[in-house]
Amino acid sequence: MFSPLIKELIESLRCLPGVGPKSAQKMALYLLERDSQGADRLAASLRSALDKVGRCQQCRTLTEDNLCPICADDQRNQQRLCIVETPADVIAIESTKQFDGLYFVLLGHLSPIDGIGPEELGLDRLEMLCKEQGVEEVIIATNSTVEGEATCHYIAQLLKPNGIDVSRIAQGVPMGGELEYVDGNTLALALEGRKKL
Amino acid sequence: MFSPLIKELIESLRCLPGVGPKSAQKMALYLLERDSQGADRLAASLRSALDKVGRCQQCRTLTEDNLCPICADDQRNQQRLCIVETPADVIAIESTKQFDGLYFVLLGHLSPIDGIGPEELGLDRLEMLCKEQGVEEVIIATNSTVEGEATCHYIAQLLKPNGIDVSRIAQGVPMGGELEYVDGNTLALALEGRKKL
Ligand SMILES: [Zn+2]
Ligand SMILES: [Zn+2]
Repeated sequence: MFSPLIKELIESLRCLPGVGPKSAQKMALYLLERDSQGADRLAASLRSALDKVGRCQQCRTLTEDNLCPICADDQRNQQRLCIVETPADVIAIESTKQFDGLYFVLLGHLSPIDGIGPEELGLDRLEMLCKEQGVEEVIIATNSTVEGEATCHYIAQLLKPNGIDVSRIAQGVPMGGELEYVDGNTLALALEGRKKL
Repeated sequence: MFSPLIKELIESLRCLPGVGPKSAQKMALYLLERDSQGADRLAASLRSALDKVGRCQQCRTLTEDNLCPICADDQRNQQRLCIVETPADVIAIESTKQFDGLYFVLLGHLSPIDGIGPEELGLDRLEMLCKEQGVEEVIIATNSTVEGEATCHYIAQLLKPNGIDVSRIAQGVPMGGELEYVDGNTLALALEGRKKL
């Protein structure tokens, strides 16, 4: 019923998380019938984000600059580091307004089965960064999942010999929960009640 | 917290129907972190759909060809025409498998307040098409809304003097309902029980 280009647009919209065949069709027709300007803007911004966005050289989060806005902000406490799994977790912690230090984004967690070891998470770079910046306190905010806990444990063992004060955010985060979906108040409490490792 | 290109991507994803700030953020991070191939395909298909998709010269639905796949199909009954408001309505009727004729897509309904009159809906072209193709039966399947009913009435008055058998799909479609969201069985019944105007 649809011509090839429209079919292809519907198919390609399905790469978006949470978008099934019905909503992909609805989105495609909506863009073509009623919002070609929005579609044009979307095509252009996808293209430039794909071409230019890479990793922050310091914390590994997504950015098109050498340093992300947080790492580039010299008002932040350079001696404090919060370690998270994903860029979305940075946003979640920032929204609590309870943390004034810098981040380190693992972009995953230890998972030997998938071939994700310490190097893939940039842990050598993390250790170097701690030394270079004279980091005094590290808060580990990996997810409260089995993998997140294992990753936390590994990092704690790695950094504690360097004399760094390493803590884990408190169990205010529900067990098995993914940080990204936890409400700001709970996250603030979890930061507040962090326990020394 | 986000760099400018990522902010722009999040903003531009909000042109998609049903996508609020939270899901736009989730989509942007998902694409950049985990599915740059999908994002690339989406950018490319948006671009070519925008550049090439126009209107079918005969029925006015969306297509990149001169004729849409339905108008180009000579197995369909050329003497029967179903009039709908949008391309999504064509899909809804096709899914009933109860109609073997051609379509005419108004791309809207009469709405004097918005400056949408008979010319904007291509009604002059509709009348010409009926004559040229020797159309014998027209089924009007505009939405069961006040505007859809008014548009139906206008078209019936326009075509009946030409000796065409004009009918309206039956009130199986719930009052105030939009065709696109009606289930296939109800639509099939509505087609079946159409009343002569
Ligand atoms: Zn950074
Ligand atoms: Zn057509």
